[in-house]
Amino acid sequence: MTPTSISQALPATGRGRPGYSRAQVISEAVNEFNAHGYEATSMGTLAKRLGITKSAIYHHVTSKEEILQEATDLALTSLEEISTEAWEQTGGPKAQLVFLIKGSIAVLCEHKAQVTLLLRLRGNSEAELEAMKRRRKLTRAMIDLVVHAQEAGEIRPDLDAGVVGRLIFGTVNSLTDWYEAGGKLTPEEIADTTAELVLSGLKTATPST
Amino acid sequence: MTPTSISQALPATGRGRPGYSRAQVISEAVNEFNAHGYEATSMGTLAKRLGITKSAIYHHVTSKEEILQEATDLALTSLEEISTEAWEQTGGPKAQLVFLIKGSIAVLCEHKAQVTLLLRLRGNSEAELEAMKRRRKLTRAMIDLVVHAQEAGEIRPDLDAGVVGRLIFGTVNSLTDWYEAGGKLTPEEIADTTAELVLSGLKTATPST
Repeated sequence: MTPTSISQALPATGRGRPGYSRAQVISEAVNEFNAHGYEATSMGTLAKRLGITKSAIYHHVTSKEEILQEATDLALTSLEEISTEAWEQTGGPKAQLVFLIKGSIAVLCEHKAQVTLLLRLRGNSEAELEAMKRRRKLTRAMIDLVVHAQEAGEIRPDLDAGVVGRLIFGTVNSLTDWYEAGGKLTPEEIADTTAELVLSGLKTATPST
Repeated sequence: MTPTSISQALPATGRGRPGYSRAQVISEAVNEFNAHGYEATSMGTLAKRLGITKSAIYHHVTSKEEILQEATDLALTSLEEISTEAWEQTGGPKAQLVFLIKGSIAVLCEHKAQVTLLLRLRGNSEAELEAMKRRRKLTRAMIDLVVHAQEAGEIRPDLDAGVVGRLIFGTVNSLTDWYEAGGKLTPEEIADTTAELVLSGLKTATPST
């Protein structure tokens, strides 16, 4: 979208100012970070891109880091909720794993821009390091669930749980690369295929047919 | 590595100039692109990082884009070779798929920095668009192989080949996020686990035990 088409599309919003609401500024900033890189995007270039002044941006946010923090927090909080809920599922560790995979995909499809930003962090600021720490905790929880399912004999025990857990998240996260809202498959269909693929791959040797 | 430790480690090389060889400049530039983003890295910041002058860099390369092109070309050429070789493997489409997965992982582990750069391209320059086009061709070849294996009845036919192919590459590519040379598992062990996981997931319904 060009700045023109955005401003044409937007109604006057916020504290009596015409133009962008706080949520819109953050959303456009995230798109810009994803398109050109977080470090390459200054508040100046962002203002230019939005067709507003820098001070109009500072009316809504105090810094670039605040935008990063808020966007990645949305992604992380949603993923953390899914992770917590997964552990609370009844039906055993395999069902919990399926819940975690499908739930993470749902979050990713709903908040694709924020998750994309999260996955591309490089750790060059406090806010990035903090977000990366929370992301590592999510990976750790996934690995714990794999271990749990292996110990319960619900999935094959011969593969390294650390590698399996990371590969599962890798598989899920790769959707940021190609998932398009409104595409051929719905998020639910993609989630089903992914969970099916991963869980069949982790089946115990005993034929269950 | 700090500029000091690099220059201490380097012998005088190249056309009579002390300091960096062309390959070293490119390699350090790629690390810098990966650490801060391609667009955020100027030739000036790169020179500063290397502790040499900008003209010393221009002695080796004509532009930032040339570095990007050369680094991603190395990754792409290696992956394209594996893709071509995969199709030439005897033993049927399933064996070809295993070859492609393991071979791609080997390339990724050997050229992790270049593959990482490739995966993070955003398409904001001709060189990026060209590399992304070649990457899409690789994905297409992976999907074709999945279709081929499905049609031959060697893997389950019920899952969408486009999704499966993309998920396989997603799984493989996620290694850029966590593979460390010299870590607990060798590239071969990781490749075996990944291929095993993916291929078990794609097994036909008939129990093969």
